[in-house]
Amino acid sequence: MTAHTGKPTLAVVGATGAVGRVMLQILSQHADIWGEIRLIASPRSAGRKLAVRGEEVEVVALSEEALSGVDVAMFDVPDEIARQWAPVAAARGAVVVDNSGAFRMDPDVPLVVPEVNPHAARSRPRGIVSNPNCTTLSMIVALGALHAEFGLRELVVSSYQAVSGAGRAGVDTLRQQLSLVAGTELGTSPGDVRRAVGDSTGPFSEPVALNVVPWAGSLREDGWSSEEMKVRDESRKILGLPDLRVAVTCVRVPVVTVHSLTVHARFEGEVTVGRAREILDTAPGVVLFDNPGAGEFPTPADVVGTDPTWVGRVRRALDDPTALELFVCGDNLRKGAALNSAQIAELVAAELGAL
Amino acid sequence: MTAHTGKPTLAVVGATGAVGRVMLQILSQHADIWGEIRLIASPRSAGRKLAVRGEEVEVVALSEEALSGVDVAMFDVPDEIARQWAPVAAARGAVVVDNSGAFRMDPDVPLVVPEVNPHAARSRPRGIVSNPNCTTLSMIVALGALHAEFGLRELVVSSYQAVSGAGRAGVDTLRQQLSLVAGTELGTSPGDVRRAVGDSTGPFSEPVALNVVPWAGSLREDGWSSEEMKVRDESRKILGLPDLRVAVTCVRVPVVTVHSLTVHARFEGEVTVGRAREILDTAPGVVLFDNPGAGEFPTPADVVGTDPTWVGRVRRALDDPTALELFVCGDNLRKGAALNSAQIAELVAAELGAL
Repeated sequence: MTAHTGKPTLAVVGATGAVGRVMLQILSQHADIWGEIRLIASPRSAGRKLAVRGEEVEVVALSEEALSGVDVAMFDVPDEIARQWAPVAAARGAVVVDNSGAFRMDPDVPLVVPEVNPHAARSRPRGIVSNPNCTTLSMIVALGALHAEFGLRELVVSSYQAVSGAGRAGVDTLRQQLSLVAGTELGTSPGDVRRAVGDSTGPFSEPVALNVVPWAGSLREDGWSSEEMKVRDESRKILGLPDLRVAVTCVRVPVVTVHSLTVHARFEGEVTVGRAREILDTAPGVVLFDNPGAGEFPTPADVVGTDPTWVGRVRRALDDPTALELFVCGDNLRKGAALNSAQIAELVAAELGAL
Repeated sequence: MTAHTGKPTLAVVGATGAVGRVMLQILSQHADIWGEIRLIASPRSAGRKLAVRGEEVEVVALSEEALSGVDVAMFDVPDEIARQWAPVAAARGAVVVDNSGAFRMDPDVPLVVPEVNPHAARSRPRGIVSNPNCTTLSMIVALGALHAEFGLRELVVSSYQAVSGAGRAGVDTLRQQLSLVAGTELGTSPGDVRRAVGDSTGPFSEPVALNVVPWAGSLREDGWSSEEMKVRDESRKILGLPDLRVAVTCVRVPVVTVHSLTVHARFEGEVTVGRAREILDTAPGVVLFDNPGAGEFPTPADVVGTDPTWVGRVRRALDDPTALELFVCGDNLRKGAALNSAQIAELVAAELGAL
């Protein structure tokens, strides 16, 4: 541990989950920032060893003691666990970076995307900073850059969400369904897919192989899904636009990793594609990949495993000079979860180091 | 043929294609309308026998002679073949119902959806009636019903388009790619899908298995795809709204049959979900399937092989009382192509019979 002397101690709470594993990869790539890295999970995972920064680290059970002496604690656990334990970590002096939905809309908890609103992370009355939902994160860096210049007024968003957004159960369900449909007529006849898949719908309630499912999350008022409400509420909070008009429809597609979104973004005044492309081409955390004549536009198969938000199909609406159309892809496990949390934690570490 | 005496003669031009085969099923279900049904295709398909109305009919090669004595000719052939041969059929006295893109925007050719603008089929200066593109057809019956009461002002549409929209080559490509990815890690790691699929991208230029591809058709001005332009131009023409604001992004998904669309529809004044649901529940050709609390929303796996436009996820935009959000599914080979053509042909047959 001598090499880490003087550097802040990091706890990863939920280290064994799908996002936790990606987190350990990212921490290994950013190896020089942290002192001790403590891996914490549920009691049933305690004693397992996971590799981080090239060394095996034993997972310890979540407890008050495990959260002691921690400078920054990254949580990736279910909402109810975060609700219970994040305040415990904060009370013991840690700054908590939480990836659950438990605190995102709490007015005393900042919701931070380092490329968009890094300043917000400095004011954290509860000692907690929230990480946005993966769907919001898949588009918000690009939209933040455009908003800074053009002033955003309205968003109409449709998602093409990967099954890993529903965790390992989502990935396993798609894998199982693909093997079940492999011997069928592949959905050219009524009922093909449903007959093949039977009741094996996992977390999706409908078959997701060879299908698209217009639902993600749980039911909210007036027919909206929780996922759709998150994209609206979180976009408003991150951009500091409490009255932003946002209409979202979330749809699950048979893609393993990377969320894609179509975005119709209306601004305060007239926009040009030329200037929009300049902004996107130079914005930190954004890759502009947009030359359809050469077959260039982002797709999940290209974007998986990468850090940035990829943007293509940039067009000005033909009938509204104030609106742009975009197709956006982001890795829901990296920028959509682990990477953004790590970036927030590094922001906090830099601030703590400067004190 | 005695049973068919006095009934109009129908020619099916392009009888052996993917849409043509569905057409023959539909004609068999509507068996009592037509006298002779003549099956016409390219010379290389001549001599084949196909079943229609329970009898085997020999396919004849496309020629002036084959188009003689025909009352109604349904064309499902490439644009350039339609451009050449539809006027020949019309000159010999047939009313042509054309499913290509050759004539859709011709001001002297009506573009008809029988549930929306049946009257338009009566004025056909060139003897040709056009059938809309499958993507337009997947939503326009529902939108026509809502427009009739609320007055449509603006559409923002994103598509989830099936591979069969690219013909048999599209279906074969998805089938081949699914077998190639079956043994892989399924896109959890960078490059998985692309490595597995290699150059086998068929008509899509990018892998479509375990992926979504934000492109359909050919490149038009300012980065728009031909498919996106069709949805805009055709919706305006069918609804008789030449200034309708329409923004579309077309995306191919790994679904075999049934196009799905998310629709943000803005109307002249305030709308209510209750009245919208009443309209959709009673509109001919529309099925309202919308109870997300009970897991009820349309998906391609349920809709494939059926005739209507299915509508679910009906919500009023939270920040705009004049806008509705919808998720719409339609079988791109039935209502999206063969069925609407057959309905137009039957409209024309009824008119001819009444003369």
